[in-house]
Amino acid sequence: MDVQQIKAFAAQFDPQPFHLDDDAAKKTLFGGLAASGWHTAAITMRLLVTSGIPLADGVIGAGGEISWPRPTRPTDVLHVESEVLEITPSRSRPDRGMVTVRSETRNQHGDILQVFTAKMVVSRRP
Amino acid sequence: MDVQQIKAFAAQFDPQPFHLDDDAAKKTLFGGLAASGWHTAAITMRLLVTSGIPLADGVIGAGGEISWPRPTRPTDVLHVESEVLEITPSRSRPDRGMVTVRSETRNQHGDILQVFTAKMVVSRRP
Repeated sequence: MDVQQIKAFAAQFDPQPFHLDDDAAKKTLFGGLAASGWHTAAITMRLLVTSGIPLADGVIGAGGEISWPRPTRPTDVLHVESEVLEITPSRSRPDRGMVTVRSETRNQHGDILQVFTAKMVVSRRP
Repeated sequence: MDVQQIKAFAAQFDPQPFHLDDDAAKKTLFGGLAASGWHTAAITMRLLVTSGIPLADGVIGAGGEISWPRPTRPTDVLHVESEVLEITPSRSRPDRGMVTVRSETRNQHGDILQVFTAKMVVSRRP
Protein backbone atom coordinates (compact mmCIF):
# COMPACT_ATOMS: atom_id res chain seq x y z
CA MET A 1 0.00 0.00 0.00
CA ASP A 2 1.36 3.46 -0.81
CA VAL A 3 0.04 7.00 -1.07
CA GLN A 4 -0.43 6.87 -4.84
CA GLN A 5 -2.37 3.59 -4.74
CA ILE A 6 -4.59 4.87 -1.93
CA LYS A 7 -5.42 8.07 -3.83
CA ALA A 8 -5.91 6.30 -7.18
CA PHE A 9 -8.37 3.77 -5.74
CA ALA A 10 -10.20 6.52 -3.84
CA ALA A 11 -10.46 8.77 -6.91
CA GLN A 12 -12.16 5.93 -8.75
CA PHE A 13 -14.37 4.42 -6.05
CA ASP A 14 -14.37 6.37 -2.77
CA PRO A 15 -13.66 10.05 -3.42
CA GLN A 16 -13.64 11.44 0.11
CA PRO A 17 -11.08 13.89 1.60
CA PHE A 18 -9.57 11.43 4.10
CA HIS A 19 -8.70 9.04 1.23
CA LEU A 20 -7.56 11.68 -1.27
CA ASP A 21 -5.70 14.51 0.42
CA ASP A 22 -3.05 14.35 3.15
CA ASP A 23 -3.80 17.77 4.63
CA ALA A 24 -7.58 17.47 4.53
CA ALA A 25 -7.30 13.99 6.09
CA LYS A 26 -5.57 15.43 9.19
CA LYS A 27 -8.69 17.36 10.10
CA THR A 28 -10.96 14.31 9.91
CA LEU A 29 -11.80 11.42 12.22
CA PHE A 30 -8.94 9.48 10.60
CA GLY A 31 -6.27 12.03 11.60
CA GLY A 32 -4.33 11.40 8.40
CA LEU A 33 -4.53 9.73 5.02
CA ALA A 34 -6.22 6.32 5.15
CA ALA A 35 -7.14 3.79 2.48
CA SER A 36 -10.76 3.15 1.61
CA GLY A 37 -12.02 0.09 3.44
CA TRP A 38 -12.96 -1.31 0.02
CA HIS A 39 -9.34 -0.93 -1.06
CA THR A 40 -8.28 -2.99 1.96
CA ALA A 41 -10.97 -5.53 1.04
CA ALA A 42 -9.81 -5.68 -2.60
CA ILE A 43 -6.15 -6.20 -1.63
CA THR A 44 -7.22 -8.87 0.86
CA MET A 45 -9.02 -10.63 -1.99
CA ARG A 46 -5.90 -10.46 -4.15
CA LEU A 47 -3.86 -12.04 -1.34
CA LEU A 48 -6.49 -14.77 -0.85
CA VAL A 49 -6.66 -15.55 -4.56
CA THR A 50 -2.96 -15.42 -5.41
CA SER A 51 -1.28 -16.90 -2.37
CA GLY A 52 -4.21 -18.32 -0.82
CA ILE A 53 -7.03 -20.57 -0.18
CA PRO A 54 -6.74 -23.94 -1.96
CA LEU A 55 -10.27 -24.19 -3.42
CA ALA A 56 -10.67 -26.12 -6.68
CA ASP A 57 -13.31 -23.82 -8.18
CA GLY A 58 -11.81 -20.57 -6.97
CA VAL A 59 -12.71 -18.22 -4.17
CA ILE A 60 -16.43 -17.54 -4.57
CA GLY A 61 -18.05 -15.62 -1.74
CA ALA A 62 -21.79 -15.57 -1.20
CA GLY A 63 -21.34 -12.87 1.41
CA GLY A 64 -20.25 -12.35 4.96
CA GLU A 65 -19.48 -9.98 7.77
CA ILE A 66 -16.78 -7.38 7.31
CA SER A 67 -15.29 -4.90 9.76
CA TRP A 68 -12.45 -2.43 9.72
CA PRO A 69 -11.16 -2.06 13.31
CA ARG A 70 -8.36 0.33 12.20
CA PRO A 71 -7.65 2.32 9.05
CA THR A 72 -5.03 1.10 6.56
CA ARG A 73 -2.19 3.64 6.29
CA PRO A 74 0.15 4.41 3.37
CA THR A 75 3.14 2.59 4.92
CA ASP A 76 1.22 -0.55 5.82
CA VAL A 77 2.31 -3.89 4.36
CA LEU A 78 -0.63 -6.25 4.39
CA HIS A 79 -0.92 -9.98 4.91
CA VAL A 80 -3.90 -12.22 5.54
CA GLU A 81 -4.41 -15.01 8.06
CA SER A 82 -7.37 -17.29 7.31
CA GLU A 83 -9.07 -19.95 9.36
CA VAL A 84 -11.79 -22.36 8.25
CA LEU A 85 -14.58 -22.16 10.83
CA GLU A 86 -17.21 -24.45 9.37
CA ILE A 87 -17.93 -26.78 6.44
CA THR A 88 -21.58 -27.39 5.62
CA PRO A 89 -22.64 -29.77 2.82
CA SER A 90 -25.58 -28.49 0.78
CA ARG A 91 -28.86 -30.29 1.50
CA SER A 92 -30.33 -29.64 -1.94
CA ARG A 93 -27.16 -30.08 -4.03
CA PRO A 94 -24.98 -33.06 -3.12
CA ASP A 95 -22.13 -31.72 -5.30
CA ARG A 96 -21.83 -28.48 -3.34
CA GLY A 97 -21.18 -27.12 0.08
CA MET A 98 -20.61 -23.91 2.00
CA VAL A 99 -17.38 -23.12 3.85
CA THR A 100 -17.14 -20.37 6.43
CA VAL A 101 -13.71 -18.75 6.47
CA ARG A 102 -12.55 -15.99 8.80
CA SER A 103 -9.77 -13.87 7.31
CA GLU A 104 -7.85 -11.28 9.29
CA THR A 105 -5.95 -8.67 7.34
CA ARG A 106 -2.99 -7.39 9.34
CA ASN A 107 -0.18 -4.95 8.80
CA GLN A 108 3.53 -5.51 9.52
CA HIS A 109 2.98 -4.56 13.19
CA GLY A 110 0.28 -7.20 13.62
CA ASP A 111 -2.53 -4.63 13.86
CA ILE A 112 -5.81 -6.03 12.59
CA LEU A 113 -7.08 -3.78 9.78
CA GLN A 114 -9.96 -5.92 8.53
CA VAL A 115 -11.86 -8.99 9.61
CA PHE A 116 -13.97 -10.73 6.98
CA THR A 117 -15.97 -13.81 7.90
CA ALA A 118 -17.14 -15.14 4.55
CA LYS A 119 -19.42 -17.87 3.38
CA MET A 120 -17.89 -19.45 0.30
CA VAL A 121 -19.46 -21.74 -2.26
CA VAL A 122 -17.41 -24.88 -2.91
CA SER A 123 -17.66 -28.13 -4.85
CA ARG A 124 -17.81 -31.45 -3.03
CA ARG A 125 -15.82 -34.44 -4.09
CA PRO A 126 -18.13 -37.09 -5.61
CA MET B 1 -20.17 -1.75 -15.78
CA ASP B 2 -18.59 -3.11 -18.96
CA VAL B 3 -16.34 -5.99 -19.96
CA GLN B 4 -13.15 -3.92 -19.88
CA GLN B 5 -13.86 -2.53 -16.42
CA ILE B 6 -14.69 -5.97 -15.06
CA LYS B 7 -11.46 -7.46 -16.42
CA ALA B 8 -9.29 -4.51 -15.34
CA PHE B 9 -10.56 -4.62 -11.75
CA ALA B 10 -10.19 -8.40 -11.66
CA ALA B 11 -6.65 -8.32 -13.03
CA GLN B 12 -5.68 -5.99 -10.21
CA PHE B 13 -7.61 -7.44 -7.28
CA ASP B 14 -9.44 -10.68 -8.07
CA PRO B 15 -7.64 -12.58 -10.85
CA GLN B 16 -9.93 -15.59 -11.30
CA PRO B 17 -11.11 -17.07 -14.64
CA PHE B 18 -14.80 -16.14 -14.20
CA HIS B 19 -13.83 -12.45 -13.80
CA LEU B 20 -11.14 -12.37 -16.51
CA ASP B 21 -12.05 -14.52 -19.48
CA ASP B 22 -15.40 -14.87 -21.27
CA ASP B 23 -14.85 -18.43 -22.48
CA ALA B 24 -13.38 -19.76 -19.27
CA ALA B 25 -16.24 -18.11 -17.34
CA LYS B 26 -18.83 -20.16 -19.24
CA LYS B 27 -17.49 -23.37 -17.72
CA THR B 28 -17.74 -22.09 -14.13
CA LEU B 29 -20.50 -21.75 -11.56
CA PHE B 30 -21.16 -18.25 -12.95
CA GLY B 31 -21.94 -19.48 -16.48
CA GLY B 32 -20.40 -16.37 -18.01
CA LEU B 33 -18.28 -13.34 -17.21
CA ALA B 34 -19.16 -11.75 -13.88
CA ALA B 35 -17.71 -8.84 -11.95
CA SER B 36 -15.81 -9.43 -8.73
CA GLY B 37 -18.11 -8.86 -5.75
CA TRP B 38 -15.55 -6.33 -4.53
CA HIS B 39 -15.96 -4.44 -7.79
CA THR B 40 -19.70 -4.29 -7.17
CA ALA B 41 -18.95 -3.13 -3.62
CA ALA B 42 -16.55 -0.43 -4.83
CA ILE B 43 -19.02 0.92 -7.40
CA THR B 44 -21.74 0.89 -4.75
CA MET B 45 -19.47 3.00 -2.56
CA ARG B 46 -18.90 5.46 -5.39
CA LEU B 47 -22.65 5.81 -5.85
CA LEU B 48 -23.17 6.31 -2.10
CA VAL B 49 -20.41 8.91 -1.88
CA THR B 50 -21.16 10.89 -5.04
CA SER B 51 -24.92 10.89 -5.25
CA GLY B 52 -25.59 9.75 -1.91
CA ILE B 53 -25.97 9.76 1.75
CA PRO B 54 -26.05 13.26 3.27
CA LEU B 55 -23.56 12.78 6.13
CA ALA B 56 -21.58 15.84 7.23
CA ASP B 57 -18.31 13.98 7.89
CA GLY B 58 -18.52 11.63 4.95
CA VAL B 59 -19.44 8.00 4.61
CA ILE B 60 -17.32 6.17 7.18
CA GLY B 61 -18.16 2.52 7.69
CA ALA B 62 -17.08 0.58 10.75
CA GLY B 63 -18.24 -2.61 9.09
CA GLY B 64 -21.34 -4.55 8.26
CA GLU B 65 -22.91 -7.50 6.54
CA ILE B 66 -22.50 -7.91 2.80
CA SER B 67 -24.04 -10.41 0.42
CA TRP B 68 -24.10 -10.92 -3.33
CA PRO B 69 -27.35 -12.70 -4.24
CA ARG B 70 -26.57 -12.53 -7.98
CA PRO B 71 -23.46 -11.81 -10.02
CA THR B 72 -23.01 -8.42 -11.68
CA ARG B 73 -22.85 -8.82 -15.48
CA PRO B 74 -21.09 -6.68 -18.12
CA THR B 75 -24.31 -5.05 -19.34
CA ASP B 76 -25.61 -4.18 -15.87
CA VAL B 77 -26.29 -0.54 -15.00
CA LEU B 78 -26.13 -0.16 -11.25
CA HIS B 79 -28.02 2.01 -8.82
CA VAL B 80 -28.31 1.95 -5.05
CA GLU B 81 -31.32 2.23 -2.78
CA SER B 82 -30.50 3.00 0.85
CA GLU B 83 -32.59 2.96 3.97
CA VAL B 84 -31.64 4.13 7.46
CA LEU B 85 -32.54 1.32 9.87
CA GLU B 86 -31.27 2.64 13.17
CA ILE B 87 -29.61 5.64 14.80
CA THR B 88 -27.73 4.99 18.04
CA PRO B 89 -26.05 7.81 19.98
CA SER B 90 -22.67 6.84 21.45
CA ARG B 91 -22.70 6.30 25.22
CA SER B 92 -19.07 7.20 25.70
CA ARG B 93 -18.79 10.05 23.17
CA PRO B 94 -21.68 12.53 23.20
CA ASP B 95 -20.49 14.07 19.91
CA ARG B 96 -20.82 10.80 17.98
CA GLY B 97 -23.27 8.14 17.01
CA MET B 98 -23.72 5.05 14.90
CA VAL B 99 -26.16 4.83 12.01
CA THR B 100 -27.18 1.51 10.48
CA VAL B 101 -27.89 1.82 6.76
CA ARG B 102 -29.09 -0.96 4.47
CA SER B 103 -28.09 -0.41 0.85
CA GLU B 104 -29.36 -2.54 -2.00
CA THR B 105 -27.42 -2.43 -5.25
CA ARG B 106 -29.69 -3.21 -8.18
CA ASN B 107 -29.33 -3.42 -11.93
CA GLN B 108 -31.64 -1.88 -14.53
CA HIS B 109 -34.01 -4.87 -14.26
CA GLY B 110 -34.39 -4.43 -10.52
CA ASP B 111 -32.37 -7.55 -9.70
CA ILE B 112 -30.60 -7.24 -6.36
CA LEU B 113 -26.86 -7.73 -6.89
CA GLN B 114 -25.62 -6.74 -3.46
CA VAL B 115 -27.03 -6.02 -0.04
CA PHE B 116 -24.79 -4.20 2.42
CA THR B 117 -26.04 -3.42 5.90
CA ALA B 118 -23.43 -1.06 7.29
CA LYS B 119 -22.72 0.55 10.60
CA MET B 120 -21.52 4.08 9.96
CA VAL B 121 -19.79 6.48 12.30
CA VAL B 122 -21.42 9.92 12.37
CA SER B 123 -21.13 13.21 14.26
CA ARG B 124 -23.97 14.42 16.46
CA ARG B 125 -25.17 17.96 16.45
CA PRO B 126 -24.15 19.72 19.69
